Amino acid sequence: MKAEIISIGTEILLGQILNTNQQWLSQKLAGIGIGVYFHSTIGDNPERLANAIKTGLERSDIVITTGGLGPTVDDITLETIAGALSLGLRLGKRQAHIPEGAKVIENRLGTAPGFIVDKGGKLLIALPGPPRELNPMFERTVAPLLRKRFGSEGILKIRTIRMTGLGEEAVDRKVKDLLESPPPLTVGIYAKPALVELKIMAKAKNDKQAKTLIDRADAKITARLGKYIFGRDSETLEGAVGSGLLLSRRTLAVAESCTGGLIASRITDVPGSSKYFRLGIIAYSNDAKIKLLGVRPGTLDKFGAVSRQTAMEMAENVRTAAGSDIGLSVTGIAGPSGATKGKPVGLVYIAFAGEKGCYCSEFRFRGEREVVKFKTSQAALDLLRVSL
Amino acid sequence: MKAEIISIGTEILLGQILNTNQQWLSQKLAGIGIGVYFHSTIGDNPERLANAIKTGLERSDIVITTGGLGPTVDDITLETIAGALSLGLRLGKRQAHIPEGAKVIENRLGTAPGFIVDKGGKLLIALPGPPRELNPMFERTVAPLLRKRFGSEGILKIRTIRMTGLGEEAVDRKVKDLLESPPPLTVGIYAKPALVELKIMAKAKNDKQAKTLIDRADAKITARLGKYIFGRDSETLEGAVGSGLLLSRRTLAVAESCTGGLIASRITDVPGSSKYFRLGIIAYSNDAKIKLLGVRPGTLDKFGAVSRQTAMEMAENVRTAAGSDIGLSVTGIAGPSGATKGKPVGLVYIAFAGEKGCYCSEFRFRGEREVVKFKTSQAALDLLRVSL
Repeated sequence: MKAEIISIGTEILLGQILNTNQQWLSQKLAGIGIGVYFHSTIGDNPERLANAIKTGLERSDIVITTGGLGPTVDDITLETIAGALSLGLRLGKRQAHIPEGAKVIENRLGTAPGFIVDKGGKLLIALPGPPRELNPMFERTVAPLLRKRFGSEGILKIRTIRMTGLGEEAVDRKVKDLLESPPPLTVGIYAKPALVELKIMAKAKNDKQAKTLIDRADAKITARLGKYIFGRDSETLEGAVGSGLLLSRRTLAVAESCTGGLIASRITDVPGSSKYFRLGIIAYSNDAKIKLLGVRPGTLDKFGAVSRQTAMEMAENVRTAAGSDIGLSVTGIAGPSGATKGKPVGLVYIAFAGEKGCYCSEFRFRGEREVVKFKTSQAALDLLRVSL
Repeated sequence: MKAEIISIGTEILLGQILNTNQQWLSQKLAGIGIGVYFHSTIGDNPERLANAIKTGLERSDIVITTGGLGPTVDDITLETIAGALSLGLRLGKRQAHIPEGAKVIENRLGTAPGFIVDKGGKLLIALPGPPRELNPMFERTVAPLLRKRFGSEGILKIRTIRMTGLGEEAVDRKVKDLLESPPPLTVGIYAKPALVELKIMAKAKNDKQAKTLIDRADAKITARLGKYIFGRDSETLEGAVGSGLLLSRRTLAVAESCTGGLIASRITDVPGSSKYFRLGIIAYSNDAKIKLLGVRPGTLDKFGAVSRQTAMEMAENVRTAAGSDIGLSVTGIAGPSGATKGKPVGLVYIAFAGEKGCYCSEFRFRGEREVVKFKTSQAALDLLRVSL
């Protein structure tokens, strides 16, 4: 069962609108077990749109169009589709025209209804462009229809395994055999700065069978990469840290320099973080490091603000100041300026102080200022996660 | 001059990735005066990709592909393009292959280079998928080449006016006449949480004529909405705050509660912020507010942590602790829990302490935890911007 999505609107081709409908519809269709083979976007041009619709109905079983159904002169979808399928137009409710023989999809949040045309066993489904109209129309009318008609052909289930602390190429090497899995199980690898995701996808008759296939692949991946995995699907690293702190009933304080509050902000993105997060100090200046964090001037003089010694004093002292179980600190050079001899941009020290003492790790990150900040926050949160 | 963009990757068709490259490239091409006529997305399938490339080179003058250039087995772009154009592969720098006769586009932030093939006067431009690699490669290498080759056919110039502190509907009412401007000048409105953008677009023979048209509309918008405008195009609110602090030679310290470090993190996203940012204290617990920020226990008892009085003590005391010119504070309830009688989720106090004294504003924000955090940071930074 092949589907394709055609988005209509010159504003998309001009880059004025980010097309989120393609992603949303693709996820929904995957969930029903319908594969999407093409996305395309066409401007408000009848000839190019008619071509796209004809091509779509030749190569796909389901063609979904989005946009161009409104009342303005730019909105050409209705007539173009009718023309491309050699159908007349009839007057529906509220003065809206729809092609002869089409089933109307009610639009409760906008003026233009959608419609479904069944043409020789192939479906053309026209939906409006605004997501807040399209989404409920798809959920209420289109999804049940597709499920009923094609639902017996199975489903596609996806699980994402999320890791940090190991690069894409190293992960790739560890799971090369899985990345080459033949259908119905496929595994894909996706990398962002300081984050690698493995997506396990299984096509199966039903949810249970798909889950069994996915669990088996997940177990293999976990056996090889377990210590780098911080979560699955929508689980975040800061959420994992929060769960670890809650479970071990420990509290946290953070002293930041180069991350400038990013670590504390991520920790406090988690609902309920006030149960374990006590205090954050962002000591950007040496003066603040001395006055607020009690770093000894001698340490700063001898080793510098970006040093193992300063990081450890920051972690120990923020722990003491907050009266928390754990003190975490980072100091480094986010760039673009600030590098000195022997201390390049991207040099970062992360220290952890707990009941058993204090330790510090050195990192060298690459990238622009915000990337170094983010990578540092990932490494610090992961160090915290592993220690819990 | 017709261009089209082909995105490559099964993960996009599965809805696992939001395709932002199409919008970004479309905006950039529009800025050079090159019209984009088609967007399409193809999975990691050599046959369908080869067809798309052949069709693209028949109907368009410029075909830009994104994605599929990496070293993994999914990455099929390189060989498929070479095959579709009947070109051999040659070994370039760093063991990377590129098609014979292609010009290499250096990738400083990733492993896979891009390339440009000139085939009978038509251009095929292959770029990697990750935006952080694609964007600088386009700006540095592709844009200058396209401008040189096609720049004489007229241009589309876009300026974005960025505002906060006023809702979309209120902005809409103030510039309704401009939103209905006929070509060659068009104005569009786009809204996100605590951010409204007006995009002014002008088509003209050259940059100067387009600039004149845009300047005229900008002046009208500024006359009506000036105090809400914090920047244009890529200017950020935190950047505007930074410029204001640098210009007035003032230093800043921040005391945060519900934003949990987000304000400090945004301020320190700006390169050079160490010149004016001294200290941030994230006092999540009452204990930290008392010990680190010197908030009086009596104030917390009588008025609560989320109160005008606590906010003002936080702002004044963080200013004193840091020895900075300005102290900024926020305290509020980000949710989902934490609401009490008379103090709902979204209630926020923002206080500003400077040489002339201290004042505080009350806000009531709607949305989920992260939205409330972001809206609070927008309001706090904007209060700072306006005060400078």
